[in-house]
Amino acid sequence: MEIRKLGEFGLIDKLTSLLEIKDKDVVVGFGDDCACVNIEGKLILFSSDIQIEGVHFIKEKISPKNLGWKLVSVNVSDIVACGGIPRWGLISIAVPENITFEYIQEVYTGIKEALDFYNFSIIGGNTSKSEKIIFDLFITGETDRFISRSGAKEGDFVYISGYTGLSRAGLELLLMDKNNYESWEEEVISFHTKPVARIDFVDVIRNANSCIDISDGLAGDLGHIEKQSKVKIVLEKEKLPVHPLLEKYCKKYNKNPYDYILYGGEDYQLAFTTSQKKEKGFLIGYVEKGEGVFLKEKTNLLRVEEKGFEHI
Amino acid sequence: MEIRKLGEFGLIDKLTSLLEIKDKDVVVGFGDDCACVNIEGKLILFSSDIQIEGVHFIKEKISPKNLGWKLVSVNVSDIVACGGIPRWGLISIAVPENITFEYIQEVYTGIKEALDFYNFSIIGGNTSKSEKIIFDLFITGETDRFISRSGAKEGDFVYISGYTGLSRAGLELLLMDKNNYESWEEEVISFHTKPVARIDFVDVIRNANSCIDISDGLAGDLGHIEKQSKVKIVLEKEKLPVHPLLEKYCKKYNKNPYDYILYGGEDYQLAFTTSQKKEKGFLIGYVEKGEGVFLKEKTNLLRVEEKGFEHI
Repeated sequence: MEIRKLGEFGLIDKLTSLLEIKDKDVVVGFGDDCACVNIEGKLILFSSDIQIEGVHFIKEKISPKNLGWKLVSVNVSDIVACGGIPRWGLISIAVPENITFEYIQEVYTGIKEALDFYNFSIIGGNTSKSEKIIFDLFITGETDRFISRSGAKEGDFVYISGYTGLSRAGLELLLMDKNNYESWEEEVISFHTKPVARIDFVDVIRNANSCIDISDGLAGDLGHIEKQSKVKIVLEKEKLPVHPLLEKYCKKYNKNPYDYILYGGEDYQLAFTTSQKKEKGFLIGYVEKGEGVFLKEKTNLLRVEEKGFEHI
Repeated sequence: MEIRKLGEFGLIDKLTSLLEIKDKDVVVGFGDDCACVNIEGKLILFSSDIQIEGVHFIKEKISPKNLGWKLVSVNVSDIVACGGIPRWGLISIAVPENITFEYIQEVYTGIKEALDFYNFSIIGGNTSKSEKIIFDLFITGETDRFISRSGAKEGDFVYISGYTGLSRAGLELLLMDKNNYESWEEEVISFHTKPVARIDFVDVIRNANSCIDISDGLAGDLGHIEKQSKVKIVLEKEKLPVHPLLEKYCKKYNKNPYDYILYGGEDYQLAFTTSQKKEKGFLIGYVEKGEGVFLKEKTNLLRVEEKGFEHI
């Protein structure tokens, strides 16, 4: 059987079931943004995310500096989604023999900028050759409380840390291969090429009931909270924040902004549920008894979670 | 400048100098088999090693089960070389869309077999697509004492945990593409396709002054101890263990076994130095004041460390 028939999540399910975990120090294994272990009473988070040329990025479409920044940011996002701050990383790099040192140096300049911004260190890794450029980052973090996808409760409020949809619009603009972009279009593109992990939300997330970072699209990622928490999530359409630049983009290219807000990937915003109202973020919905992720428009309820992005 | 002009170690030096580590909990950063951090008084080791199709393995030349075993073993070897036992791993896999699930399942069967053998768990990871098969393993371990490459002392004895050279002989046999291998040749090949990390040496290593695992060849890897410890290492040729199968191979194919013993890569034996004689392993030389790695044959001294294997 070819794996494309299983899909990414089907494959992950089958593989993880092969690897039984028997270790009392493992607090959380597969199935969340991070794994978590208890080391002498401290909760240590582990996660990894890879960037492969031609799969996760197109070399000509992202500057090496932004690539380095993005590699770090998407990993930090997973740590923050579990309520943690990043501590240490390891980096595996594999590159073609004819790549220039200057290119890799620029990637590392972007990595260093991100490490300084998020305040942690890369302390090891390995180097090898490869036909395509590969950067794989393993990240560890720490937290006082692990925030999972499975903790959402009936009556919770649903929040999002910021606007979604811009990254996908930015990717589409990039792929248009235009000779000249307007300056606001360049700004939209930067949401795709230089995402910022919401480390400023750590304190809020640590007091939430559940959280996930939006890498595959708001609707699909909330579907993970919905399934793992066994609840129903209702998003209120009029509360979903529409970024003015997304509006501008959708007007110019005749698109529906809600397709981007609900199904655009790689936003790296945090969606979380909490029993108390918060000062930070946008309140976009609520949690009920039941199942499914729904969009509410006036009295109309539409089920929405089935269109998340899969990597295989 | 193309990176092949820098070489693997030149590239690593330049990149690590870009990433300054400012964290008092980091005990060891770049430059050893593992990085090491102090978490609440516990020494936690981090390492990673990648297997890329066409670079580290040829799909038709290694069974998926052995590939999974090898992926885990080469990583465990780094942990043991620092005196640690493995604890938790994360795995990044990237595979072509047309690969069969059965292939990946077999890889995971080999991984699981190795996890049971070395007694630790894989607790997370990520999955994506790629033109070539990529398995990247991030491993953590723990130890009471970090054994580095830089602790060798004048007067130390030099030991090796077992025979070297067989893996390279096995690789050469594989690449001969013979229709029929003799059964002893199959055995030689298995040293390449199913290496065993010397976790049985952990107690010995924890009392050693320095250690490294032999991935790039005995002479080259001892060169890392020699340089980082600022000592001279003398190997006594008549003490270097020659495996009977390596002797057989070299006789049949008209090769010099010492080329394999000193410069063959991927042995995953442990070379270590210690101030007291040990019961386990082969005593192969001694540490003196000075610099360089030398082979002593009767009264003749020949410098040998310059031929280690580089991955770029």
